[in-house]
Amino acid sequence: MIHDECGLFAVYGHEDASRLTYFGLYAQQHRGQESAGIISVDDEGHYYQYKGMGLVPDIFEEEHLRKLPGPIAVGHVRYSTTGRPSIANAQPLLVHYKGKSIAIAHNGNLVNTVELRRELEEDGAIFHATSDTEVIMHVFVRELNRHDVVDAIRHTCERLRGAYCLIFMVDDTMVAVRDPYGFHPLSLGRLDGAPVLASETCAFDLMDAEYEQSIKPGEMYVISPAGEISVPLTDNMPERPRQCIFELVYFARPDSYIFGEQVYSCRKQMGWQLAHESTPDVDFIMPFPDSGVYPAVGFSQCAELPYEHAMIRNHYVGRTFIQPSQSMRSFGVRVKINPVRAMIEGKRICIVDDSIVRGTTMITRVKKLRELGTKEVHIRISCPPVRFPCYYGIDFASPKELIAANHTLEEITKILDVDSLHYLSKEGLLRSVMHSDHYCTACFDGDYPVKPGCQYGKFGLEN
Amino acid sequence: MIHDECGLFAVYGHEDASRLTYFGLYAQQHRGQESAGIISVDDEGHYYQYKGMGLVPDIFEEEHLRKLPGPIAVGHVRYSTTGRPSIANAQPLLVHYKGKSIAIAHNGNLVNTVELRRELEEDGAIFHATSDTEVIMHVFVRELNRHDVVDAIRHTCERLRGAYCLIFMVDDTMVAVRDPYGFHPLSLGRLDGAPVLASETCAFDLMDAEYEQSIKPGEMYVISPAGEISVPLTDNMPERPRQCIFELVYFARPDSYIFGEQVYSCRKQMGWQLAHESTPDVDFIMPFPDSGVYPAVGFSQCAELPYEHAMIRNHYVGRTFIQPSQSMRSFGVRVKINPVRAMIEGKRICIVDDSIVRGTTMITRVKKLRELGTKEVHIRISCPPVRFPCYYGIDFASPKELIAANHTLEEITKILDVDSLHYLSKEGLLRSVMHSDHYCTACFDGDYPVKPGCQYGKFGLEN
Amino acid sequence: MIHDECGLFAVYGHEDASRLTYFGLYAQQHRGQESAGIISVDDEGHYYQYKGMGLVPDIFEEEHLRKLPGPIAVGHVRYSTTGRPSIANAQPLLVHYKGKSIAIAHNGNLVNTVELRRELEEDGAIFHATSDTEVIMHVFVRELNRHDVVDAIRHTCERLRGAYCLIFMVDDTMVAVRDPYGFHPLSLGRLDGAPVLASETCAFDLMDAEYEQSIKPGEMYVISPAGEISVPLTDNMPERPRQCIFELVYFARPDSYIFGEQVYSCRKQMGWQLAHESTPDVDFIMPFPDSGVYPAVGFSQCAELPYEHAMIRNHYVGRTFIQPSQSMRSFGVRVKINPVRAMIEGKRICIVDDSIVRGTTMITRVKKLRELGTKEVHIRISCPPVRFPCYYGIDFASPKELIAANHTLEEITKILDVDSLHYLSKEGLLRSVMHSDHYCTACFDGDYPVKPGCQYGKFGLEN
Amino acid sequence: MIHDECGLFAVYGHEDASRLTYFGLYAQQHRGQESAGIISVDDEGHYYQYKGMGLVPDIFEEEHLRKLPGPIAVGHVRYSTTGRPSIANAQPLLVHYKGKSIAIAHNGNLVNTVELRRELEEDGAIFHATSDTEVIMHVFVRELNRHDVVDAIRHTCERLRGAYCLIFMVDDTMVAVRDPYGFHPLSLGRLDGAPVLASETCAFDLMDAEYEQSIKPGEMYVISPAGEISVPLTDNMPERPRQCIFELVYFARPDSYIFGEQVYSCRKQMGWQLAHESTPDVDFIMPFPDSGVYPAVGFSQCAELPYEHAMIRNHYVGRTFIQPSQSMRSFGVRVKINPVRAMIEGKRICIVDDSIVRGTTMITRVKKLRELGTKEVHIRISCPPVRFPCYYGIDFASPKELIAANHTLEEITKILDVDSLHYLSKEGLLRSVMHSDHYCTACFDGDYPVKPGCQYGKFGLEN
Repeated sequence: MIHDECGLFAVYGHEDASRLTYFGLYAQQHRGQESAGIISVDDEGHYYQYKGMGLVPDIFEEEHLRKLPGPIAVGHVRYSTTGRPSIANAQPLLVHYKGKSIAIAHNGNLVNTVELRRELEEDGAIFHATSDTEVIMHVFVRELNRHDVVDAIRHTCERLRGAYCLIFMVDDTMVAVRDPYGFHPLSLGRLDGAPVLASETCAFDLMDAEYEQSIKPGEMYVISPAGEISVPLTDNMPERPRQCIFELVYFARPDSYIFGEQVYSCRKQMGWQLAHESTPDVDFIMPFPDSGVYPAVGFSQCAELPYEHAMIRNHYVGRTFIQPSQSMRSFGVRVKINPVRAMIEGKRICIVDDSIVRGTTMITRVKKLRELGTKEVHIRISCPPVRFPCYYGIDFASPKELIAANHTLEEITKILDVDSLHYLSKEGLLRSVMHSDHYCTACFDGDYPVKPGCQYGKFGLEN
Repeated sequence: MIHDECGLFAVYGHEDASRLTYFGLYAQQHRGQESAGIISVDDEGHYYQYKGMGLVPDIFEEEHLRKLPGPIAVGHVRYSTTGRPSIANAQPLLVHYKGKSIAIAHNGNLVNTVELRRELEEDGAIFHATSDTEVIMHVFVRELNRHDVVDAIRHTCERLRGAYCLIFMVDDTMVAVRDPYGFHPLSLGRLDGAPVLASETCAFDLMDAEYEQSIKPGEMYVISPAGEISVPLTDNMPERPRQCIFELVYFARPDSYIFGEQVYSCRKQMGWQLAHESTPDVDFIMPFPDSGVYPAVGFSQCAELPYEHAMIRNHYVGRTFIQPSQSMRSFGVRVKINPVRAMIEGKRICIVDDSIVRGTTMITRVKKLRELGTKEVHIRISCPPVRFPCYYGIDFASPKELIAANHTLEEITKILDVDSLHYLSKEGLLRSVMHSDHYCTACFDGDYPVKPGCQYGKFGLEN
Repeated sequence: MIHDECGLFAVYGHEDASRLTYFGLYAQQHRGQESAGIISVDDEGHYYQYKGMGLVPDIFEEEHLRKLPGPIAVGHVRYSTTGRPSIANAQPLLVHYKGKSIAIAHNGNLVNTVELRRELEEDGAIFHATSDTEVIMHVFVRELNRHDVVDAIRHTCERLRGAYCLIFMVDDTMVAVRDPYGFHPLSLGRLDGAPVLASETCAFDLMDAEYEQSIKPGEMYVISPAGEISVPLTDNMPERPRQCIFELVYFARPDSYIFGEQVYSCRKQMGWQLAHESTPDVDFIMPFPDSGVYPAVGFSQCAELPYEHAMIRNHYVGRTFIQPSQSMRSFGVRVKINPVRAMIEGKRICIVDDSIVRGTTMITRVKKLRELGTKEVHIRISCPPVRFPCYYGIDFASPKELIAANHTLEEITKILDVDSLHYLSKEGLLRSVMHSDHYCTACFDGDYPVKPGCQYGKFGLEN
Repeated sequence: MIHDECGLFAVYGHEDASRLTYFGLYAQQHRGQESAGIISVDDEGHYYQYKGMGLVPDIFEEEHLRKLPGPIAVGHVRYSTTGRPSIANAQPLLVHYKGKSIAIAHNGNLVNTVELRRELEEDGAIFHATSDTEVIMHVFVRELNRHDVVDAIRHTCERLRGAYCLIFMVDDTMVAVRDPYGFHPLSLGRLDGAPVLASETCAFDLMDAEYEQSIKPGEMYVISPAGEISVPLTDNMPERPRQCIFELVYFARPDSYIFGEQVYSCRKQMGWQLAHESTPDVDFIMPFPDSGVYPAVGFSQCAELPYEHAMIRNHYVGRTFIQPSQSMRSFGVRVKINPVRAMIEGKRICIVDDSIVRGTTMITRVKKLRELGTKEVHIRISCPPVRFPCYYGIDFASPKELIAANHTLEEITKILDVDSLHYLSKEGLLRSVMHSDHYCTACFDGDYPVKPGCQYGKFGLEN
């Protein structure tokens, strides 16, 4: 499994603020299933928070929303790349400083956390947990001593290297920030006149909020009783944005707009490009649901080959269940998705999927298809081989586990035991999006816009 | 929502009997989400049971399986058509009688429950709950006084009118029965030499059991230490089976074989027939996921129109969640599935779905599509209008709520506010299956193979 | 541990019926911690029920009370002597028969269950569980075919041998019954004009209901819309009642009235009598809390020796807790009660307790007292040695485990390693109560008023 | 209700460290029911923690102990006086600083928290919660930059004003500290050679650890791989200790030794002194269980009046239960303890209790006794009137709610509607303990050993 780090949601000036945030997180549950939290602010400036481990509907009950009053709320769902799963790492992070309450929610990953942390510790900072967010908080609080909120954020971000979408809440001011490379998405919408912020626009759809725009790379969007203004984070912007193309390939929900692109359309285009590059002679095209559906639809349309939905997903998977006994052979393979034998027996099949990371799932699925009598299995992948680690918030397996980092295309074809295998070229992938030169492709080509300042790791910290 | 009554699973002579049953129920969770139960029998003939309300993975934990020892097990998932949701109605039903333990699991619905119950009460029977199964148990126990197990079952079934797939467990003998009309499915498979029974073959796939055959209408399949034999239930068989065609249209999982038909293939054929009958001039074909996917795929292939998967399902729906506040407009519409605006704006769309029952969901979904700018909405339904109640176990809404029982096609077209609407003809539907004359179509045409012996109702019993 | 079978509570004609029943069970939680249930009846004669395993406050939540509407309610807490712990055995038992709903709650134990059950099974009765109550229900329903409610109860009870306090609910009539020997207690009170029934009057105190009288042995108390009447169960009454004296020695709460006796006063008298019979030369008197407190107070007053409360009870014991590891020596001894070392070191102590059953707890406690430096330990027990099993509802250990059934006083003194040991004589015990000749003393002397009709056992039934 | 702040437990060098800590907290549950936590340290210096809201047996399960490996553990149960109930305030507090993990557990209350916090914030410290412990942590970490662990603690404590028992864990070194006044208790014991620390010795009893000594006021007890040493915290010790006498009056468990005194013996002495000061002419002495039992026993012995245990405690109280309806009169009074009517009717009673704070409970209890027919009610309280707030960790009601701060003895007698009322004199109280001049009596006489440096309050901080 590949994991993203987080989903953000916030609303400013709505009577149902914490309830809307609950639903905003619920819609973005796919961005983080480890923990979730909501902070609300009432009219008198009091801050309230509630956090828990697990899924949004399992954490929050009606009584918790009642204890999150006020017209302002910020929420966060988290899957962790740094820091152990722990309630201490759950976000948003709320601290108290000189009578102020300050909250920060963060999506992304910094590459200079270790250096910042060392520096802050020299200056007396102590850390309760292991997240980047606590580091950002310490820097920010120091800057807040010398500057107003906006300048403090600017000076804070000057010191952060890496990927960050941030929502700050100080007193009655909310500020949304995207780093100058714009690695991760953050969008602005409006509901009953109130501004809402979300990592993905599917959160807006759920509550019938209107999507207004994507927060731009290097933009600070400031919301306060005085109104809303957009402020540049820095004059020193990079040549071009480096948005995470993997959000489009895999993470984002297909009904979302992110980076000004429509995810479903991009994925369909990837399938279309893929068909242009390499269409095998098969009976039909088939996805592994659900992620492979969209490029498979595009592939089938371009290749003029039938689309079949011949792998059936068990809707109740995802809940914890009892483990099979040792004697149950190859059990796990068909728990999540099960092939329709009648459709595949004796057939030549082209499977379209979004990516191959370690290859283990693909190996067992292909094996099962062969056992059930598939005549030929051809694999088409809607992005290039993932060969390099991501330092900006995507939790691929470690480099030594990445199948494409350690094997040639031919070797992989053999390992998977497939009749043919083709990955979409980087050019094909970039042709599938509107703003081709605005993306980070480091996981494919190693071209890192921000060099990691320390060894990639978990800091060896116990939490 | 339309609901089926139950799913059955049993295994005879396997060291992992209760664990396999757990997984057999898990795979058939779509057949009943209200309650579930497992009964096991150990080598010394002791019976053990555990039941609960809710979903299989939420009810059973490792410790419960430990308390269900032995090589024989019978399980049941239930959605109730008769009887209130109550643990007292959960199945399988286990009773004690003259030192014997007797278990029965039932899928279906009788039409003469009230008469049987009255008769039994005259004879001193008392009832703990309101299910048909308890009635069947009382009849069976009386017959067991006079006959051996097989004959007792035969004499019991002679008195049952309606739909029943039954699994009996008495001492060390298991008997599976399908009523002479064969309303509901029941299949036999084999795992490590042990016979397994399931309503749907998707349960076999999960555990790599081999599918052997469908239990035939009017067949008793007897499993005991002496071996396995098939025995006819009666000489007086009806002219032809009347299997529930709605299982193929909607209930069964597409990867299952039931009634000797492959569900996915049938549904695709329904879409194909539907396209033959009425293909509108549209930009693309789109399902409401997940049930509409398979006929939509068939429709798009036959009509040579693009297939798009432009309604996105939220994977976390199904869990209980907090209610939206009053002020949140038209909230529920997009919680489960959300349209991809970019795909539908300005487009002429043909939506393929499996059925329209009350029409309310369809109305709100079409309304939302129109709000988002769809140019034309055409609806194609992969079965005829549902106009009559089912007495055999399918819980449609009550007749007065069935939109097609109360409105003409033209009226429905207007009510839904769609540009065109077409239901698959009964002939088209029957052409989509292999054994066209083996099906019950009473919900479409009112041709009831077994007349209901009492008013359709819930017996007015409190539970 | 010694266990009693059950506690009963009922209220007829009060707007808060189910809520009052909740509190009535809560006050009687000491009479049964295994399961609890409430049945309510609304103004239209509909019956509602809710049951669960565990403690009353853990089973029932506000929402459950809302689903138990109506002015009539019957509740039950259970510790089982017959039948496995199982939700199927939880009471009250509710069944449906010929359009009627019938509920029964039972406290006590029959000695002819096996015979009755065999006879009923010959007549076609089938059993869902293993409790006496289901047997009584079957007999009653058969009688109800031929008689009105009161006569049906009379004919039912004619066939029951053993101990039974029963509350029947049929249509709108509630009937409370005590068996002719009156083994277990049942009292009538009144709240806001409405009659309330409870095993112990402490339930009345909690809700400020007035205690009116004890239901008499062999009395039926009938409550219906027509009013309240007392009816004799039979003309054939035994010579004298045989009420369970162990209720006074141990089970009942000290603030209750039962059998027309005040429990606290009786227990104090037992201590007083005990001091008369055998006062050792010690520094002070000390109970094992809480059951030993009351006779110890009486003993100390009569013996004019100081009372000390030198064993401290941990108030949080009773909740499940994690087990100690193997290496933790003699751990359990001091979890529940811990001696105050400073008080006992070098002292000669007389411990007053209510009973010794198997002796194991007493052995470890005395051992600990000796380790902590107690100079002399004298034990005084406020009832005679328990030598015979109870067939009427008290779950002593099995006869072969009863220390006094297998050892002489001298042997027990040695086994316990105490300086002296004295049990209150039967005469002394009977002098402690008002109605000395109204009690069953079978567990002390083997004089069984109702001979057991079958071997004492659990019927070998799996549940 | 009066609340204390916390209970501490720690063990160094035992294979069952976290399990022992679990039981050490369990034994001290009466010192804090709001939250609990355990930190463990394994042989490689990794720190692990688990915390939760509620009672110890409800928070910790076997799996949590498995995730707390290693031979060192520190635990804490908390009732909060400062800081809201919140998981963020649960202790022990664990932070990370320059590669070190540092844990602190604190029992007590500082009077200069606000000043320290302000100063630390000026220096850049940010606060996650509102507890004193986080303030102490910040001071300590700053000192740790300049000093070794022992000196850092010494310099830290120099800056703390108020009450503190602290357990520090840094790397492999554990240090226990009591403030120079020794407000709260902390004792050292030994189990299988390993040192154990606990607020009260009842924790040692549970695990059969040997009590060795009380940590002295102003003592640091240092445990490391190098061995154990006692180090003075400061040369500048106050004239005399000021230990919290209310620990002896009410908080501590009667089987504990604290401050070198045996709690049970002290309480009995208080009753004895009280009888000397004022014995009314009554029929018997009676406590409100459980806190009043011990002085009542002493009183009865000195006054040579009978002791009766005539208020019965419901053992199942403490669990959450459903609320009574509005119409249930004076319901709550008898839920917790219920008087034995037969004992009190027409009697002249002397009730001995430990304290009266707001008086509301006493008023309703006396009222109920009068309703039930008590002839005379005389109250004797085993400490002087509580007139002043405590700044060191005891959460009395606010001064304006303290009945004795606002009313004369005569007025209180009238308010309570009792025949006579006497509080133990301060002299009598001090005669009841061994080290009469070692106690703080500020809540009785306002003689504060450490003046509060800021207004008594909750800092107005939201958490």
